[in-house]
Amino acid sequence: MNYSGLLTDLYELTMMQGYLLQNRNENVVFDVFFRKHPFSGGYSILTGIEDVLNLLPRLSFSEDDIAYLRSLNRFEDRFLDYLRNFKFTGDVYTMDEGDVIFPQEPLLRIHSTIMEAQLIESIILNTINFQTLIATKAARVVHAAGGSGVLEFGLRRAQGVDGALSASRAAYIGGVIATSNTLAGKLYNIPVTGSMAHSWVMAHDNELQSFAKFAELYPDAAILLIDTFDTLGSGIENAIKIGLDLKKKGKSIMVRLDSGDLFYLSNKIREKLDNAGLQDAKIVVSNDLNEEIIHQMVTDGVPIDFWGVGTQLVTGGIDSAFGGVYKLCAKENSGRMVPTIKVSNNAEKTSNPGVKQVYRFYDSDGYAIGDMIALQSEKIRPGRPYKFYHPTYFHKKYILNKYSRIEPLLKLQMENGVRTGDSFTLQEIQQKVQKNLTNFDKTYKRILNPHIYKISLSETLKKLKAQLIDEYK
Amino acid sequence: MNYSGLLTDLYELTMMQGYLLQNRNENVVFDVFFRKHPFSGGYSILTGIEDVLNLLPRLSFSEDDIAYLRSLNRFEDRFLDYLRNFKFTGDVYTMDEGDVIFPQEPLLRIHSTIMEAQLIESIILNTINFQTLIATKAARVVHAAGGSGVLEFGLRRAQGVDGALSASRAAYIGGVIATSNTLAGKLYNIPVTGSMAHSWVMAHDNELQSFAKFAELYPDAAILLIDTFDTLGSGIENAIKIGLDLKKKGKSIMVRLDSGDLFYLSNKIREKLDNAGLQDAKIVVSNDLNEEIIHQMVTDGVPIDFWGVGTQLVTGGIDSAFGGVYKLCAKENSGRMVPTIKVSNNAEKTSNPGVKQVYRFYDSDGYAIGDMIALQSEKIRPGRPYKFYHPTYFHKKYILNKYSRIEPLLKLQMENGVRTGDSFTLQEIQQKVQKNLTNFDKTYKRILNPHIYKISLSETLKKLKAQLIDEYK
Repeated sequence: MNYSGLLTDLYELTMMQGYLLQNRNENVVFDVFFRKHPFSGGYSILTGIEDVLNLLPRLSFSEDDIAYLRSLNRFEDRFLDYLRNFKFTGDVYTMDEGDVIFPQEPLLRIHSTIMEAQLIESIILNTINFQTLIATKAARVVHAAGGSGVLEFGLRRAQGVDGALSASRAAYIGGVIATSNTLAGKLYNIPVTGSMAHSWVMAHDNELQSFAKFAELYPDAAILLIDTFDTLGSGIENAIKIGLDLKKKGKSIMVRLDSGDLFYLSNKIREKLDNAGLQDAKIVVSNDLNEEIIHQMVTDGVPIDFWGVGTQLVTGGIDSAFGGVYKLCAKENSGRMVPTIKVSNNAEKTSNPGVKQVYRFYDSDGYAIGDMIALQSEKIRPGRPYKFYHPTYFHKKYILNKYSRIEPLLKLQMENGVRTGDSFTLQEIQQKVQKNLTNFDKTYKRILNPHIYKISLSETLKKLKAQLIDEYK
Repeated sequence: MNYSGLLTDLYELTMMQGYLLQNRNENVVFDVFFRKHPFSGGYSILTGIEDVLNLLPRLSFSEDDIAYLRSLNRFEDRFLDYLRNFKFTGDVYTMDEGDVIFPQEPLLRIHSTIMEAQLIESIILNTINFQTLIATKAARVVHAAGGSGVLEFGLRRAQGVDGALSASRAAYIGGVIATSNTLAGKLYNIPVTGSMAHSWVMAHDNELQSFAKFAELYPDAAILLIDTFDTLGSGIENAIKIGLDLKKKGKSIMVRLDSGDLFYLSNKIREKLDNAGLQDAKIVVSNDLNEEIIHQMVTDGVPIDFWGVGTQLVTGGIDSAFGGVYKLCAKENSGRMVPTIKVSNNAEKTSNPGVKQVYRFYDSDGYAIGDMIALQSEKIRPGRPYKFYHPTYFHKKYILNKYSRIEPLLKLQMENGVRTGDSFTLQEIQQKVQKNLTNFDKTYKRILNPHIYKISLSETLKKLKAQLIDEYK
């Protein structure tokens, strides 16, 4: 499958032609990074890398695309010919899909001609921003749920078809155990799940009959929605009747609640189920849930086994975008790569110059201590102390003497437009996320007001940044 | 192009098989409606109807889809055969794409067999919920901008590829004048626009050279980004030099601001442009804008000509989902359509039963007075007074004696799975939205704390609802 090169902001094409007509197509390096975790959180989960590596070599322009661009009356034949033959031939360094990531760090580095680098900006950001948002949300929801399971129910409220499919995939990476989206199940091999709608109950003569028919048809997946009429008045009583029947056949029910006070109701329901001898019946709830609501209920000891999370999981809720940006960090000049900087009146928005690598330092228990952004050309190796500088306030620094391991996070994943790194199954990526998160102290994973993980510059990078800011002034 | 029937929640398929194996496939009617405007607004703009009417006849299951469903071990051959031959054959009544809509009103009515009606629930809601969210957001942003133009710049922060494309389309329907998304421009015939990135400025020897090259290449679209280094210190001065050159050729510049205090800076910039004799130079701004920010600046008389709005326009910002739902309102029983109701402990969530039509009443100036939801079987015609009942609190009512015109809003758009109604170009729909909005008093269109437009039940529908609630109890 090819991807249309038109999936880009018009100004990318405008600038590309500008370079071509100036007979300039020097090599450059662009970084993708972000400035702030979504959801006031303490970490984010990088996602979308597999899709980016998959689509970059497949970006092309059909004759139809070329004809459309010609119709805009701003592109010359020479440029349209370039696009007709377009193929991405750059190198791409990335962190891994599923890595725990932090502000300021280059997550992905593009080494290519300036024309290629401009074309791919919009689609790279679109892919990584959305999927990272959702995987991060999912990781938070799953963390809040403790040992109980999280199910993704977002299709009907997702932002478009691809908004739903990509969200199902990203949510699974973040730790969700199943989706209701059948096509996502097929495309990504994610377990699918579901119960019944209120319409099922309403379309039968009465609630008990609707439950009985369902359990007869699906004795191994008898998830009964008990709040169509009166949860405690009729729903749970009818469900218990079915549960007792199924129990004789060695099977058990689940009951689903989609309204009301979930804490109060699930406690009452658990009590009724237990008193009826249905200790192995499970309770699944839904209704505009998010990590804060789940965290509070789990902390209060609610007897809920599964959480169906929809809207807020697949859209991010109040934080509906991840703010990844794409910035030039080096450009070729007389055959040499020269670091570039974007200085901002807002000091925290001044970019980190040069071709960079990110190193994660671990202690002897395997916990991450802090990350250092350094120039790729530096040799950062175990065996000596390192100074860590705050990325904006250079007077803030500390020296790390004691650490046990250093891990470089950016890896070459594409060379001359050809993928070189390994690819992983979604299941493997999901497991990597859970494993990666165990490397971080729980204080960083708090739902509210988390501890801030330290991201620093190496001494060499700090000096380069300070020098370029000085030169600029 | 076909759409995979798998783009549905698993429980729809589970229920469908349940009906088939009970040898039940009676006719039903489902309504799509919503309960609350997004953005604390006073109105919403229905969008996604064209896509729904386009995709319904194209929903089908490939052999691959069938094989996937078989692999789930919950579906029988008889059901899989049904899906293999699936074709939507129902009737669809809808309001028009671009209609101004309000809570409680059926926006779309599906008349089909219960199996068909269940399959299409998720994809209908996915389509309408997202596009309506964005068209509504766009209409608000455009309203806030007064006469100045709004440009959609959201591709890089949108929720996936389709999240971006559908958003570009919906934003255009809502009144945006152009998009930066080139593929959306091609697919939907939306004007495309764009300037330059900071990287363009940084990739040249200096700012003035970068502007000069750009203006040389694009003398008719010289939008210069003036905040890469120092907006007032260098950016505007360099832009004015280019503007004076272009002026000699009878052309003019636009300057773009992407940071800082946009009110302060745009006033300073307007002054500098005017003092230099560049009165026809335009100012375009961007930087995480929304309708509240724009409204405040426009009210304060800011000299901004165009607003580039990205993230919040294409995702909805803090309201990232429109809450459309899909509820059974009637089912066949012994050959007769019988109204159904879903009673909720929360009175406002109790559904309106039966097959319904929505009537909009207008005064002699052409302003909408209020909407009445009535049964389709009632004859609502001009010439007599009507009682309007509050949908939840039946004691709240008023009598409308004086009105000039009654418009039924739901129209038959698909019969036996075949589209019957007219389809419109995107430009026509955009114009209809602007025209529709002029039918509403400005108090309903306030950005903050709008007047609440009255939605009522007819006397007959009120009686039916009250009776069914009583019967239920």
